[in-house]
Amino acid sequence: MDDVQQYVTNLGKSARRASSQLATLRGDVKTAALRNIAAAIRAGRETLLAANAKDVAAAQQAQLAQPLIERLKLTDRRITAMADGVDQIAAQVDPVGQIIEGYVRPNGLRIQKMRVPLGVVLFFYESRPNVTSDAAALCLKSGNAIILRGGKESLHSNLAIAAIIAKSLETSGIDPAAVQLIPSTDRAIVPPLLKLNQYIDLVIPRGGESLIRAVVAESHIPVLKHFTGNCHIYLDADLDGFEEKARAICVNAKTSYPGGAVCNAVEKLIFHKDAEKLLVKVCEDLAAKGVEIRGDARTCALYPKAKPADESDWPLEYLNLIVAVKVVDSIREAIDHINAYGSHHTDAILSNSAAAIQQFITEVDTASVMVNTSTRFADGGEYGLGAEIGISTDKLHARGPMGAADLTTYKWIVTGDGQTR
Amino acid sequence: MDDVQQYVTNLGKSARRASSQLATLRGDVKTAALRNIAAAIRAGRETLLAANAKDVAAAQQAQLAQPLIERLKLTDRRITAMADGVDQIAAQVDPVGQIIEGYVRPNGLRIQKMRVPLGVVLFFYESRPNVTSDAAALCLKSGNAIILRGGKESLHSNLAIAAIIAKSLETSGIDPAAVQLIPSTDRAIVPPLLKLNQYIDLVIPRGGESLIRAVVAESHIPVLKHFTGNCHIYLDADLDGFEEKARAICVNAKTSYPGGAVCNAVEKLIFHKDAEKLLVKVCEDLAAKGVEIRGDARTCALYPKAKPADESDWPLEYLNLIVAVKVVDSIREAIDHINAYGSHHTDAILSNSAAAIQQFITEVDTASVMVNTSTRFADGGEYGLGAEIGISTDKLHARGPMGAADLTTYKWIVTGDGQTR
Repeated sequence: MDDVQQYVTNLGKSARRASSQLATLRGDVKTAALRNIAAAIRAGRETLLAANAKDVAAAQQAQLAQPLIERLKLTDRRITAMADGVDQIAAQVDPVGQIIEGYVRPNGLRIQKMRVPLGVVLFFYESRPNVTSDAAALCLKSGNAIILRGGKESLHSNLAIAAIIAKSLETSGIDPAAVQLIPSTDRAIVPPLLKLNQYIDLVIPRGGESLIRAVVAESHIPVLKHFTGNCHIYLDADLDGFEEKARAICVNAKTSYPGGAVCNAVEKLIFHKDAEKLLVKVCEDLAAKGVEIRGDARTCALYPKAKPADESDWPLEYLNLIVAVKVVDSIREAIDHINAYGSHHTDAILSNSAAAIQQFITEVDTASVMVNTSTRFADGGEYGLGAEIGISTDKLHARGPMGAADLTTYKWIVTGDGQTR
Repeated sequence: MDDVQQYVTNLGKSARRASSQLATLRGDVKTAALRNIAAAIRAGRETLLAANAKDVAAAQQAQLAQPLIERLKLTDRRITAMADGVDQIAAQVDPVGQIIEGYVRPNGLRIQKMRVPLGVVLFFYESRPNVTSDAAALCLKSGNAIILRGGKESLHSNLAIAAIIAKSLETSGIDPAAVQLIPSTDRAIVPPLLKLNQYIDLVIPRGGESLIRAVVAESHIPVLKHFTGNCHIYLDADLDGFEEKARAICVNAKTSYPGGAVCNAVEKLIFHKDAEKLLVKVCEDLAAKGVEIRGDARTCALYPKAKPADESDWPLEYLNLIVAVKVVDSIREAIDHINAYGSHHTDAILSNSAAAIQQFITEVDTASVMVNTSTRFADGGEYGLGAEIGISTDKLHARGPMGAADLTTYKWIVTGDGQTR
């Protein structure tokens, strides 16, 4: 066995061992451990800032785009937010042990479904360092061990956070192998990791599309994908009296996150032909915020400042201040377009019509359907999950924003008093 | 594109098209279609028996084992049971559209999680022809299209059942591509099928271990595995007054299904050393039913008629009238053995001790924990699911017996009145 193989095998084995301990921990022990981690993050401010400074300097030297450097940067405020996030997860109800169904069969057998941890989670992610503490805290809360593999650009920051967590875990009497960060960003480690189905129960790749495709192609472990968000807003024929709110929602959905560089930002606006008047106003609102408008032929005729959109625009996630605009003759055409070109992440309808809303909810194949509100609300925090490990674009196991409960499975518990079949 | 590629692409495309129709069907339309199928199965008795006779003759010629031929055989009674099964699924509550969570956020957003169909299911299975109609009915009920790939030995029977279903679907105004049986058992078709992640949402392989491993290794589509059942019963130290029931449970768990050839039959009995007296009685009960006993050294000392078990016995699923018996010093040792050698399918504890039961429930990593009852109850029908498409040994998405609701995912529906973030 070569060194890499030896390393990943040990990683998997130790995580599995830690997960056995985690699965049987009482809720108060987990809560105390999370509070210790939050306190240690606050106390480790100087260490974290120093480590982060190395990452930021390297990013500047590598001439990374300014928005990426901004996302990478830790500040006093961001470190406090990281610690607060862990405290919030500590305060959540423990999902482990919850009875999610329970009934008695005619023969007297008591049937229960009880939430239990998955075991070991392997998590790939990029850029923002707070994802390290969020993911570790969600896994601890749900009784899972986690193996973290962050992006190259935040390696020093991630190592510093992981070291703080490991020390806190030891203080709390928890096996520090419960949270392990891979200290290398070498790609060679990925294929052997993805063969550890004996030790790892779930892989969550959250990051660029090429990373996700590589993980799916190679993994022997079930994968929950967090693909792109090519989100749509459909503005229906019937919007009387809702025009101002519709304009505000479109602007919010595109511009409320800096640079529009977030998966729940809207990328496509589809107007019913009877909402054409609104089209011009919405385009003007967005242009005033620095958004580039690309339009189909009908849009360009109504709003000549739009650049012509081509076929390659419709499936694209811009992650930037760009939006493509299209005019349709019917809600049917809008739904078909969204199902054909969307990424099944988050899609919105703005309408007064109960029938149109019902049709949109039923027929659009997407993780989150927003009705008369902004796509930007597709978020674990906004849904009340406390935090999220990501937004699943898969249909299996969990769909949309994933919180601690989505990192559990269940056991059937069947209790009798001697029944035979 | 060669012929096989062309064939599987058309299969996937047509199933996807049918799934769009199915997803929006009202419950009463699906119920009526299922009742039509049940009636057509009853009316098609002669056709089904004739097709099945070909399979049985081929199996006899190929000198298949007698229990396998028995499982393959259709009779008047079995055809009635098939039709009744479809009628039972018709009578179930429709899982599609159920709101499984719902609450209002402080900002007034109404958040709901609504069950929706997965889309298209690819199902690999073997032997019993009634699995064809059960699986098709469960998928229709849950609004999914299904692609069926049955075993070679039941091909004629399966084709006859699928033809009856296709005709009923047309009569009911449903796209017959909703249920498609692959009319070939050529292995060459499997790899291209498993690359159709554009059209197929879930693969369920239910059958031999080599088939499942091949599917997992090749699939680009999420797989729900239905592996072996190496099921355990642990007989605890404290069984005063429960001895007779414990003996009956052990006999039931091993012998109630003919030949013990079923995944929820017990394969291993683990006795606490204080239950040694019971060990001899249980072994005698089982031997009297024709069960071969294999024992560890302590078992062989107590019950000398046992054959010595070796290390290879512990992870094995016999699917036969064989059981291996082991004596342990503590519940700890029993749990560690089960977690190390079991298949995480179904494991039972027989005990009067609340503390022992609690420890077993918490620490044994298995889909179904049976307490003071037989492992044979691990079954969708017995759990009240109406029928099952299989018993998942995976932890993701669904675990243990899977019914119609386990063939659904959910959508988040977020309803506002103009909120922005």
